[in-house]
Parts: sequence; C-alpha cells; structure tokens
Amino acid sequence: MKLYRLIEELKGFKSELYGKDFLLTWEKSVDDLNTVLYVASILKEMRGLNISPRIFDSGLAISNFRDKSTRTRFSFASAANLLGLAVQELDEEKSQISHGETVRETANMISFLSDFIGIRDDMFLGEGNKYMRQVGEALDEGFAKGVLPVRPGIVNLQCDMDHPTQSMADLLHLVNEFGSIEALRGKKIVMSWAYSPSYGKPLSVPQGIIALMTRFGMNVELAYPEGYDLIPEIVDIAKNNAAQSGGSFRVSHSMVEAMRDADIVYPKSWAPFHIMQERTKLLMKGDKNGLKELEQVCLANNAKFKDWEYNEQVRTVTKNADALYMHCLPADISGESCAQGEVSKNTFERYRIKTYLEAGYKPYIIATMMLTNRFEDVGDLLLRVIERNTKRVAL
Amino acid sequence: MKLYRLIEELKGFKSELYGKDFLLTWEKSVDDLNTVLYVASILKEMRGLNISPRIFDSGLAISNFRDKSTRTRFSFASAANLLGLAVQELDEEKSQISHGETVRETANMISFLSDFIGIRDDMFLGEGNKYMRQVGEALDEGFAKGVLPVRPGIVNLQCDMDHPTQSMADLLHLVNEFGSIEALRGKKIVMSWAYSPSYGKPLSVPQGIIALMTRFGMNVELAYPEGYDLIPEIVDIAKNNAAQSGGSFRVSHSMVEAMRDADIVYPKSWAPFHIMQERTKLLMKGDKNGLKELEQVCLANNAKFKDWEYNEQVRTVTKNADALYMHCLPADISGESCAQGEVSKNTFERYRIKTYLEAGYKPYIIATMMLTNRFEDVGDLLLRVIERNTKRVAL
Amino acid sequence: MKLYRLIEELKGFKSELYGKDFLLTWEKSVDDLNTVLYVASILKEMRGLNISPRIFDSGLAISNFRDKSTRTRFSFASAANLLGLAVQELDEEKSQISHGETVRETANMISFLSDFIGIRDDMFLGEGNKYMRQVGEALDEGFAKGVLPVRPGIVNLQCDMDHPTQSMADLLHLVNEFGSIEALRGKKIVMSWAYSPSYGKPLSVPQGIIALMTRFGMNVELAYPEGYDLIPEIVDIAKNNAAQSGGSFRVSHSMVEAMRDADIVYPKSWAPFHIMQERTKLLMKGDKNGLKELEQVCLANNAKFKDWEYNEQVRTVTKNADALYMHCLPADISGESCAQGEVSKNTFERYRIKTYLEAGYKPYIIATMMLTNRFEDVGDLLLRVIERNTKRVAL
Repeated sequence: MKLYRLIEELKGFKSELYGKDFLLTWEKSVDDLNTVLYVASILKEMRGLNISPRIFDSGLAISNFRDKSTRTRFSFASAANLLGLAVQELDEEKSQISHGETVRETANMISFLSDFIGIRDDMFLGEGNKYMRQVGEALDEGFAKGVLPVRPGIVNLQCDMDHPTQSMADLLHLVNEFGSIEALRGKKIVMSWAYSPSYGKPLSVPQGIIALMTRFGMNVELAYPEGYDLIPEIVDIAKNNAAQSGGSFRVSHSMVEAMRDADIVYPKSWAPFHIMQERTKLLMKGDKNGLKELEQVCLANNAKFKDWEYNEQVRTVTKNADALYMHCLPADISGESCAQGEVSKNTFERYRIKTYLEAGYKPYIIATMMLTNRFEDVGDLLLRVIERNTKRVAL
Repeated sequence: MKLYRLIEELKGFKSELYGKDFLLTWEKSVDDLNTVLYVASILKEMRGLNISPRIFDSGLAISNFRDKSTRTRFSFASAANLLGLAVQELDEEKSQISHGETVRETANMISFLSDFIGIRDDMFLGEGNKYMRQVGEALDEGFAKGVLPVRPGIVNLQCDMDHPTQSMADLLHLVNEFGSIEALRGKKIVMSWAYSPSYGKPLSVPQGIIALMTRFGMNVELAYPEGYDLIPEIVDIAKNNAAQSGGSFRVSHSMVEAMRDADIVYPKSWAPFHIMQERTKLLMKGDKNGLKELEQVCLANNAKFKDWEYNEQVRTVTKNADALYMHCLPADISGESCAQGEVSKNTFERYRIKTYLEAGYKPYIIATMMLTNRFEDVGDLLLRVIERNTKRVAL
Repeated sequence: MKLYRLIEELKGFKSELYGKDFLLTWEKSVDDLNTVLYVASILKEMRGLNISPRIFDSGLAISNFRDKSTRTRFSFASAANLLGLAVQELDEEKSQISHGETVRETANMISFLSDFIGIRDDMFLGEGNKYMRQVGEALDEGFAKGVLPVRPGIVNLQCDMDHPTQSMADLLHLVNEFGSIEALRGKKIVMSWAYSPSYGKPLSVPQGIIALMTRFGMNVELAYPEGYDLIPEIVDIAKNNAAQSGGSFRVSHSMVEAMRDADIVYPKSWAPFHIMQERTKLLMKGDKNGLKELEQVCLANNAKFKDWEYNEQVRTVTKNADALYMHCLPADISGESCAQGEVSKNTFERYRIKTYLEAGYKPYIIATMMLTNRFEDVGDLLLRVIERNTKRVAL
C-alpha cells in the first residue's frame, strides 16, 4: 500500500519542524523540507482513500490576510477544516501597518483558543516577514506567561521575502511530475520575469522559487530585464544553496536565451526591488500622488519589455519543446485576461491543467505545516490516524 | 414511527438526482421532486428527534453570492453545517461578470477540498444560469483530469431563470398545509404580480413557481399588468407542464379577478422581462446614467399599478376568504416596510407565521439537494443514519 | 482533582439561568453569577486537560455585531467552536436601526437551525438592550408557533446598558487574582473615568462594573469629572446592590483621591450620559453635521481633564502602590497608541500581561452563558463530559 510506503520513507528524515513557525524555506533543513513533501503526499493519499485526518475536536485557525487572496484563502480554509479547525478571519483596518503594542496585544487577543495563525503580508518590503516574527514573539510571551494554553503556530501565507506554501506546493508538483526529489537533480529550471500590464507584483514568488529549487541540485536560472532585481540577500542565499546542493545558479537577462534546454519554466511578472522599496516608503507615508506617479513610471518601464512573453516560439527552445510550464496563478494571459501578458493563450492552454494540479497541492502543504508544528512524531501520528480509520465521508 | 414511514414511501420513487447539479426544477422528473420533498421531510423529522445526519467529518461548502442575501445565506450555512461541512464564502469583485478563463480557473481553485458550491446569480438576465453551467463544466473537467478528488455538486441558490430552493420549500410548505402532494391536485394557486416601490426584482420566483406548481395537477394562474411578462420560454414550460400533469395554466391581467376562489395566493412584485433585458445590457456596459433613467421609467410605470395590493378586500374573493398567502420574504408591507406595497399590514399579519414556516423548509431542501447529489441510495443512507443514532445535542 | 472539586462546589448554587437570555447581570441572582464563574472555571480547566466539552454535533451560533469588535468577536467564535457550533455572522445594513417587523422576521429567518445569537448593539442609548429583547420576543413567538425547533438563547455581547461578558470575565479575573469570591469582600475597587483623545466611548463597561462588583461586598467607588455621569438608573442599581451585599458604593470627582488605598483600579474613558443621549438623537436623524459639532464640543471638554491619566504617580497612592490595574482593552496608552491617554506607558506595562489574562476569561464566560441557557443541570452535564473524555486534540 502506497500509504505505508510513504510513512516508512518519511521516518528516514529527521525534521526539526516541531514547535517552529514556518516562515522561510531557507530556515528549514533539507530533511524538514522532505518531511513536508512526504506528509503532504500522505494527506493527499488519505483523502483519496476517504480517511479523515481530523485531529482537532475543536479549535480555531486564524487567517490574517493583509492583502487580497482567493486561492491561498481557500487553501488555508481547506487545510484547517481537514484537521478539524474552524477558520476565523482577522479583518484589520487595511491601509495602516500596525506595530508595537497593537501587534503584541492583538496577537494574544485572537489566540486564547487558537491553534494556528496564517498570515499574508506581502505589500511592504522589509515589513511582512518582520511582522510575522513580531506576532510570533508576542505569542511566545503570551504562552510563557500563561495567557495562552498553547502557542499557536504561524504559517507564512506570503510575505515580502518568501511564499513558502506556494514554493513547497510547486516543489511537490515537480516531484510528482518527475517521479522523485532525486530526479530533479541536474534539471534546468528557469525562473523568468515576464511582461504584465499591472505593476507592484510581489517578489516573494521568484525569491521563494530560486531559494528553494537550489536546495536539490537543480540548475536554476533567474532571468529578468536589467533593473528588475530581487532582494540581493535572497539571491545570495540561492547561490549558496546551489553550491551546497551540487546544483548551479545563474542570473541572465534574456528570456529566450535562458529558456534554452530548460526542463521547467516559471515565467512570471514582478516589480523591481528598488521600485518596491520606493513604493513601501510611499505606502507608509500614505503618499497617494507619489504612488500614482511611481505606477506610471513603472508601467512605462515594463512596456519596454513586452517581448518577455512565454509563447509557442519561446517554448520551442526548451527541452524537447516541452518544458513543464509553471505558474502560481492567476497568470496574465495574452488575449485572455489582458491584451498582452506573461504567456500566450495557446501556450498556457497546453499546460493549463498542470497548473491546476500544481495549485492543488497547497491545501495539503498548509495542513502539513500545521501538523508538523504541533506533533513531534508526525509519522507515528499518521499511523494512528490510519489505524483509527475515521471516514471523511461516513456511512 | 413517522420517520420509518417516510423512508418507506421514499423508496417508491426512482430519482436520478445522483451526480447531477440542481439548477432548474423543470430538468428534474416528478420522482426527483418527490424524492427531494421526502428527504427534506425526513431531515426535518430527524432534527425534531435530535438525530444528527452529519455525514461529513470534514469538507467545505462554497457559497458564491453574486447578489445580496440573508435568508438563503443562512439556509445554505445551516444545511452545510447540518451535514458536517464548513462554509467558505467566495467574495468576488462585485460588479463585473467573470467569464471564460476566470470562471474555469476559479471553479477549480476553490474546489480542491470542496463538496458543494451554492451559487446565487440573479442580476443578469441570460447570464446567471449560464454561469452555473460554466462552473459545472469546469468542475467536470477538473474532476476528469484528476485536479479534483470529487466533483462538487452545484446548488442553484437563485438565478435569472429559477429559484429552485425557494420553490421547493414553497411546495413542501403546501404539502404540509394541504396534507399531501396528491391533495394539491385541482387546487387553484395564483402567482400574481403586486405593486412595490422598488424596481428590478428578479423574475426567478414567479417563474420558479409557475414552472413547478404546474407539475402536480394544480390550476395555476399567472396574473400581472400588461407588460410585466416573464421569460416566454418558461411560460411555455408551465403550459406544457400543466397539460402533462392534468392541471391547468392561464395568464390574466387583473389581480382581483385572478384571486377569485383561489386556494393559494402568491402576490409578489417583479420587473418586466423587457426591462430586465434592458437592465442587463446597461449593467454589462456599466452605464450608470442609463440605469438611473431606466429605474425612473420603471418606477413611474409601477406606480400606475398601486392597486395591485393584496389586502383584506382582495382576500374576501378567495376560497372561503382564506386562501393560503405565500411569500418568499421579505414582503413589501404597506404601512410597515413602505408606504404602499405588495400586501396590506393586517392581511400579512394573518399569515405572517405561515410565511415563516414556509421559509423554514429551505435549509432542509438545500441539505437534501446536497445529499441526493452525493449519495445514490439516499433512503438507505438515511436508514443507516438512524441506526447510527448520533445525537445532534449530545449527553 | 481540581475539576471535581469545582463541580462539587458548583452544585451548591441554585441557578435559574436555564432557558433565559443573558442580558443584564442585575437580572441574575448571586447564585446565577456564581454558577457562571464556576462553569467558566471548569471549562478553562478542561481545556488545560485536553478534555473537549463539545456538546453539539452541529448547529449555528449567530453573531450580530452592530458595532466593530475584534476581541469579543473572537471570544464568541471561540466559545461557539468549543461547544461544536459554527459561527454565522449576520451582516446588516450598517447605519440604520431596524425595528418592528424587520427585527421580528429576521430573528426567525436566521434561527431555523441556530442555537444561540450573540448581539452587540452599543451605539444607541436606550436602543441596544431594547433591540435584544425585541429579538428575544420574536424568538419566543417563533418557537411557540413551531417555526423554530429550539428557542435560541441570546447572549448580550455589549449593549447601551451593560457588557456582561466583559464584567463577568473581569470578575472571574478578580476571583483568580484574590483567591476566591469571598476574598473580594471589603476590597476597594475604583471605576474611574480617564482621559482619551477619542469620544463617544460606550457607558456599558463602567455601568457593568459598578453594577456587578457591588454584588459581592466590595467597596466600589465611581470617579469621574463633573458632567461625565452614567445612566442614573444603573447608578441606583449599584447603590442598592452595595446596600444588600454589605459593601459600599460612592461617587467622587477626583481620580487621585478616589484611587487612595484602592485594591483594584479600572481607569477607562467614557462619554457623558447627556452627550450619548444627544448623540443617539443625531445618529437616528442621520444628522452628520450635528454629529461633527457634538464631537468637537465633546473632545474640547475631554481635553480639560487630561490629568485624569493613570500613571506612576497615581499608582503610588493605591494599596501598597500596587493596586491591580484592569482594562477591557484596548487601552489608550500615552506615548504608545496616542500622545496622551488613559494610562501611562510604563504603568500599563507593569500590568499588561494581567490585562491579557483578564481578557482570556471571556471565551469561557460566553461558552458558559450558552451552556447554562441550554442545560438545566450543568453540573451533571459537565460530569458526563468528563466521563465521556473526548480529547480536544485527539491521538
């Protein structure tokens, strides 16, 4: 039975996820990451077998979306529900960043009977991940002082630095497409900027991808027009990862050249690092005119790179003209969701269902981050879940 | 025990509801409709006996309200909760209709761990029901391609054509008021337009009523001022239904005349078909001035028919001056919620509690649509629920 | 085992909470209030022991927040979830007060499968508590007439008169801080007005505190600048309570003088009674200019009393310079959340964690109000919960 084989293999990894928040993949060991992949696979397998992994008889999972979200919102709700938790959304005053006392207090006030907090905070460069850590410190204090009966685990649902539930779902998709994590070794993956008529898209997806995929011996190439840099520290992390894992990492500036012989391509728009820095300053000042001007400048600059579209022509240069196309969705599809965008309509259509499959791992990834935060021996827990054999759909 | 009798009788119907969305009552057989009535009655009976029909240990029921709703929203939430599902609302960008790629993609993105999707889309003539079918096709594809572990069932929570959860709740109310579905044969029911100071009320309720009540040998009369037509194709369906079921169907243009000797009256405002067509065009163009002008024209036209009020005088012409008054609520009550409206205050008061009872069937109707979509032999399922004997309120 | 001792002691009280809404503490007997304290303590104890008090296999708890709320919203959600209920929010049209028919009808429409309704309605003096009673009467009628299978219990989540979930949580905090309810006898508690740069804060917290704390033989002092009166009838209730319980009640007009030798201090801003009356009139008329003017007048008046700040200097006059500081949170903290406010930063910091502990009782208080409304012999129920021994976190 596949389920038992997966659990057996899971036991081979020494994870240190227990009791820790999941904020950045590069803070986690390779064993941690493998653990996440395996547990998520097991939960998905269980769902197919109608085995309910409901662990909580009651409890809340708090979601705190400081930016819009549909698919991550639903993935979080699905994950919480799968484990028996009810979702309660924290709907803040939107535009202002809350700091200091407010964060400390609110973190405790929402957590008296809560088990997990999922946070999306990706608008402000240098702020999102910091905010999550402030929440974490407040929860640590509340738990230590007897305010909270448990220390709720935090799941990063996208910040300014990383988007770990996305990148881990992407990685699990690759594992399933290529057969195993080992099979990814030596594969070429291109994280490429692509043109979009919108602006201000976060850097967390490309950063998350280059920092994660370099952990497993892949040949990672980051391609973008001059000026569309990511946060330098995270690019350095990717370089180091590649050196350690036996893979490679390079930066280049032509989509077509980068795509040559690629096994996997991830063409996606983002805003340049320095624009996001400027934008964060303006947002924090509440300078609406400044933001409008910046948007104009940025859109005009983007428009110089309309040829950064992934399409049938570019596809032909990839490995067997059939590199696996990836996207976190929604993609800006030329002639579909916009006049000209990140990907042509027919090229997207070739891989559309695969992008749905890719997205479909996210609920299991999030549920895994919850389980591994809370249970020290998750393999053992899952065995007991199988033995208990509660049906998700009863009777 | 009433419960066992109901289940025994339920077995007499051959329903084909399994695996099908519930979008229009006229796509369902009489056996299907009877099945819904019986299962809903059984669920209501169980509730009285403190037997929990919770079938799902986890799972999501998605609600997608593209128009405001209180009572259907609560009915949907109640139904989902009764079966063990958590509700997750899809809160879209409001004004724009999403088509093509977006619908296809979103339908899958929200469904990875979902069991049902309830949709209200009643603003745009020619669009609402179409949208539900687009969602359905997207789910079919997602399930066929392995994106979705189950094919979520769709429940129509009101579209431009029908409002089946309302009309089926209304029908179940009639069955309970008159004793049986057979007792409705030969009864006269009048679906009448009534004056309202508002405009743009959907056609789905009157359409749903005439198309459903003609299935059971009733004498259905549709009354409205000249010009306040419904969608012609659905009026034709009502005619054909009446012919087949041995009842009758006629259209007339005087409220008082129509009400004469009525056993049941359903006085309710709606907008004329051609106005709704015009309105849909303006809405889709986003023409706010055009919409304002149309509203003025329409309100002025409505005002010519202020005498279309159901009141004590009109009531006296009905059977024994005591026809059963029905309304989907909220009604526009003269001297209560508006200066002049669909029904006089004292006449409404006579039947107020009955309208509450009428509304009270909706949660069970929706739960039934979920169960019959998902389980092939619902009678057998319900027997096992009774045997299991889980208490809704334990201890 | 502490759990059994608490249940044993609980049996000593004769409560009449069964079947009654929890709207005002002064409508409840001392035995009722003790029952609430004990049941809440037992539920908190159970949580620590991982015993799930889930009583409902399904059911809805409706929340109706007619004013903003974060902590009470989360407390209500936590309480409902703890007992097995799903929360469904009633999101009304915001600005208008609904009366008459609408309340009567809506109350029934949301309650077909509901077990409890929590209501916050604190904006309109003379309206909030009245609204809750209207809802209650509508539910009584719906239940009597067979519309509702159960009569949902109402929990007052703050009205114009009282904030019983807050004051009862505050009282339970005091019981835990001082060791027992008996230990509170003779203790001096000061409910003091404090300066805030905002205006229009409800009177329900100070009113709730003076009316509740006078029930247990405490010496209660209410201090405020001349003109900042509370509702006179509730001040009279506090006086009578004190006379009956063997405590005392006095009103004074200097924060520092009042604080002298206090065991407990509760410095918190509120708007004067006559201003709230004026404001209610303007709100109901929708007079925006009038409201703006009133705000200016009120803020200007507040500014005369900036020295009503609880700080290190004032603290020194309290018992052992260490009176227990209480607040319903969020507090207006000088130099933290505002330039000058109710409490100085360093004084608040001394008691910050204690205010979190204080807030942490609220979910258990609300769950208790639900349980005692629904089960006649709660002590017996809790014993059976312990015997059943369902784990909140399974496996």
